Amino acid sequence: MIESKKNFKIQYMNKQGPDLMEKVVSLCKRRGFVFPGSEIYGGLANTWDLGPLGVELKNNILQAWWNFFVRSRKDIVGIDASILMNPKVWQASGHVANFNDAQVDCKACKKRFRADHLIEDSLDGVKVEGLSPSDLSKLIKENKIKCPNCGEQQFTNVRQFNLLFQTHIGPTDVENAPVYLRGEIAQGMFVNFKNVQTTTRKKIPFGIAAAGKAFRNEITPGNFIFRTLEFDLMEFEYFIKEEMWKEKFEYWLSEMHKWLDTAGIKKENTRVREHTQEELSHYSKRTVDIEYKTPFGWKELYGLAYRTDFDLTNHAKNSGEDLNYFDEATGEKFIPHVIEPTFGLSRTLLMVLLDSYSEEEVKDAKGNAETRIVLHLKPSIAPYKAAILPLMKKEELIEKADEVFNLLNKYFALDYDVTGSIGKRYRRQDEIGTPYAITIDYDSLKDNSFTVRDRDTLKQERVKFVDLKTYFDEKIYG
Amino acid sequence: MIESKKNFKIQYMNKQGPDLMEKVVSLCKRRGFVFPGSEIYGGLANTWDLGPLGVELKNNILQAWWNFFVRSRKDIVGIDASILMNPKVWQASGHVANFNDAQVDCKACKKRFRADHLIEDSLDGVKVEGLSPSDLSKLIKENKIKCPNCGEQQFTNVRQFNLLFQTHIGPTDVENAPVYLRGEIAQGMFVNFKNVQTTTRKKIPFGIAAAGKAFRNEITPGNFIFRTLEFDLMEFEYFIKEEMWKEKFEYWLSEMHKWLDTAGIKKENTRVREHTQEELSHYSKRTVDIEYKTPFGWKELYGLAYRTDFDLTNHAKNSGEDLNYFDEATGEKFIPHVIEPTFGLSRTLLMVLLDSYSEEEVKDAKGNAETRIVLHLKPSIAPYKAAILPLMKKEELIEKADEVFNLLNKYFALDYDVTGSIGKRYRRQDEIGTPYAITIDYDSLKDNSFTVRDRDTLKQERVKFVDLKTYFDEKIYG
Repeated sequence: MIESKKNFKIQYMNKQGPDLMEKVVSLCKRRGFVFPGSEIYGGLANTWDLGPLGVELKNNILQAWWNFFVRSRKDIVGIDASILMNPKVWQASGHVANFNDAQVDCKACKKRFRADHLIEDSLDGVKVEGLSPSDLSKLIKENKIKCPNCGEQQFTNVRQFNLLFQTHIGPTDVENAPVYLRGEIAQGMFVNFKNVQTTTRKKIPFGIAAAGKAFRNEITPGNFIFRTLEFDLMEFEYFIKEEMWKEKFEYWLSEMHKWLDTAGIKKENTRVREHTQEELSHYSKRTVDIEYKTPFGWKELYGLAYRTDFDLTNHAKNSGEDLNYFDEATGEKFIPHVIEPTFGLSRTLLMVLLDSYSEEEVKDAKGNAETRIVLHLKPSIAPYKAAILPLMKKEELIEKADEVFNLLNKYFALDYDVTGSIGKRYRRQDEIGTPYAITIDYDSLKDNSFTVRDRDTLKQERVKFVDLKTYFDEKIYG
Repeated sequence: MIESKKNFKIQYMNKQGPDLMEKVVSLCKRRGFVFPGSEIYGGLANTWDLGPLGVELKNNILQAWWNFFVRSRKDIVGIDASILMNPKVWQASGHVANFNDAQVDCKACKKRFRADHLIEDSLDGVKVEGLSPSDLSKLIKENKIKCPNCGEQQFTNVRQFNLLFQTHIGPTDVENAPVYLRGEIAQGMFVNFKNVQTTTRKKIPFGIAAAGKAFRNEITPGNFIFRTLEFDLMEFEYFIKEEMWKEKFEYWLSEMHKWLDTAGIKKENTRVREHTQEELSHYSKRTVDIEYKTPFGWKELYGLAYRTDFDLTNHAKNSGEDLNYFDEATGEKFIPHVIEPTFGLSRTLLMVLLDSYSEEEVKDAKGNAETRIVLHLKPSIAPYKAAILPLMKKEELIEKADEVFNLLNKYFALDYDVTGSIGKRYRRQDEIGTPYAITIDYDSLKDNSFTVRDRDTLKQERVKFVDLKTYFDEKIYG
C-alpha cells in the first residue's frame, strides 16, 4: 500500500465552523462513538449513548485524568459518593432554593425558552445575570421580543424552574419528601470531608476528587453532547488555609492547562475567562472558566472557583457536625477554605473529537488524490492503540495475526479487522483515531516481521515480533 | 522489623459467621473503604459512599472485568447507555407492569415488609414465588403470621409496589409522563443492538457489554452494600443463533468461574444454583445463579440467563424497528437469541472484602504475639500496589523515598506513609491489603537498595533502585 500525504490540511476551525459539528456528529454515529439515546423509540430529549468507541474514549480520558490529578499525587485522594443523597444536603447547599433557571413559554406555539437566552439572543449586548423573573418579564415586554420559533409576541410571565430532578424513595402514592438526583458532584466531597480526612490522616493542603454522573433538568439542552440532562463530571475540592488561596488558585490554573495538553486539546482553541463581579456567587472571591472555541462559539469547558469556607461552614451549621480541621503543628482549629477545579467529562469527550478531526488529501495506490478523514487523537486516549490487519482472509495470515493479537492484547486495546481492501481498512482506522496499524502479509510468515503504519506521518516500518511490545510501549507511553 | 507468621489462621467462615460482617463493616469505615451516605445528615436509607480505598478497589475490579470480558476478546464490545431512557423502553420490557415487589404494612407499628420475605421467614420451607397479592394476603391471615417487629397480627392487604424510581423531565407541576431511572442496564444494550452491530460489523456470535448504575426502589434493602437502592452492575448480552444456546451457556458459566478466580474469590465460597421451573421467567429456558457464602447465608452474586429471542423480538414489535440480523454467509435473516451473564459490581466489592479478610497471629519485634488483620487482596485489584515507607521522618530519607515514589507512581498506585513506627505502618498496610511495602532506611542512602516486604509471606528482600520497576511488574502482573 502506497500512501503519500500532501501538505494540505483543511483549516476547519476557520473555514468550516458550523459544518465541523455536523461532520463530527455524523462520524460519531457512523463509527460508533455516540448514538442518540433510546433511538429505536424515537429518542429521549437530548440523551445520548456512547457506542463501542465512545465508551473506550471516555474511559481513557477519565483514567488519564484520574492518573494526572489523583494517583500520581500524594495530596489528592478519590471518593465515589452516591447519586441519591439526603435531601438536607441540597437544602443546605442552596440548590433547592436557588438552583433555578428562569423559563418562559410562548402561548402561541407552546415552545419553552430560557428567559436569559431569549433576551440575550434577541437584544445585542444585553446581559441579564442576576435579574429577577419580573425584571426579565419586563425586558421581554418592553423590547417586544418575538418568539424565535413562531414570531408571535405572546409570552407567559417568566417563572423560576428548579433544575434538580426529583424522585421518591418508597411508595409515591403517600406523601413523602422528594429526594433529588445530584445536580453536581461537589456535595459528595463536602459531606465526606471529615470521614476522608480522619481515615487518610491527610494534612492541609489536600484534595478530594470524584468523577461521576450529575443530572440537570435543563429547559434547553443541546449542541449534541455539549449540554445534556445527564452528564459526566470530574472534579476535586482542594482544602487549604485561607492565606494560601491566591497561590493555589494560580497553581491549579496552570495544572489545568497541563492537563489540557495531556488530553490533546490544542492551546490555541482554549482561553481563560474571568468571572465579573456580577457573575460571582456571593461566597466566591474569584472564578474563571476555561473556554473552548466550539463551532457554536466560545463555551465553558472547565471551571476553577475559590469558594472560601462557604461550603464546609454551611454544612457544619446545618448538620450540627464539627467540620473543623485541627492543625497538629500549630494547634489551630479552623474550617478549611476550598479551591475547586471542575472538568466536564462529556464536554472533554466532545472537545477532543472536535479538536482532533481533520480532512486531508492523500494519494491512493494508483496516485489519485483522495480525502482521508482522520482523528488525530493522542495514542494514550485513542480507543484502540493499534489495529491488527491480516492482508487477506487466508488461514495462515489469520493464524499469524492471532499470534500478534494474543501477544499485545494484554497490554493494549486492539482492533482486529479482516474485511475489505487494506486501503479501506487504513481509512477506517484513520477515522476512529487508531494511531498504528499492523499489517500481517506473506513476508511476515517468513521473517516474523510486520509493517507498522503511523496514522499521522503515514510512514511504514518493519518491526520484528519480539520487538513489538517494546516498540508500542515507547510509542504510546514513552 | 522482625515479624514471623505462625501457622494460625482463623477459620472465620465457619467459626465467626455473623461476626465477620461486623468486622468488615468496621474496617471499611475505619480505613476509608465505605462510609454511610450523607452521614453528617444522619444518612439516607441504605446509601453508601466509597471512600479513598473503596473507589480504587471498585475501579480496579471494574477494569479487570472489562479487560477480561471486553478488551481481551474480539467478540465483545462495550457501550455506555444513559440512565434516563425513553419510558417506552420500560413499557416494552415489562418493567412498568411487572417489576414489582409485594409489600405489606403492619398497622400497629407501621413497619413495612416484603410479603414474600415475611412469609418465607415465618413459615419454614414455604416458597411463594409466583403467588398473587391476594394469595399472599390469605397466607398471612391463615397462618396468623405476626409482625417480626412488634408481635401484632394487624397487617394491611398485600399490594404490588413498582421498583422503578420515577422522575419527570421538565416542570413537575404540569401533567407530563414520568421517566424512570433504569432498573437494570440490560435494556441499554438491547435498544442499541442494531447501531452497535452495523457500526462494528460484528458477526454472530458476539456480545455487547456495559457497566454502570442501576436503581431499585427496594422496600427492604440491607446487609451493608449487599442490597442498596443504587448499585453498580457489569453485564453483557451475548447474541447467538438459537441452536448454539446450550454450548454457549456452558461456555459462559465456565468463563464466569475463571473471572471469580481473577477477582480473587475463593471457589469453595461459591456455588451454582439452578432456577426451578417455577422461578424461571416465562421467556427463559435456563437460568443459574452463582451464589456466595456470605455471613448472612448463601446469596446471589452473579446470574446467567438464556433469554431466548424475547428481548429483541419484543423491542422490534414495540418500536416498529427491524431488529433482524442478516447472516451474509447463509443469507438467513433472524432475531438473535441471547445469553446474559450479569455481575453485581457492588456485591463483588463486598465479596472480595469478605473473602480476603483474615486475622492472624504474628510475633512483634520483642517476640510477643499479636493479632494482625490482613486483606489478602490480589495485587492486581488491591487499592495500592505498594507503600513507600521512609524509616523515619528525616529529610534525607524523605528525599530518597520521593525518588522511589516518582520512579514507580507512573506505573502503580502507591501509598506513602511517614507517620508512626514502621511496625504500625506495616499493620496499616496489611489492613488495607497493600501487597508490598518498600522501606527506605539509612542503608538505602548508601547502596540505593530497599527492603521490600511481602504482605502474605512476611518475607523481606533487598531490591536495587534500578530493578524496582521490573520487580513489581513481575510480582503484580507476571
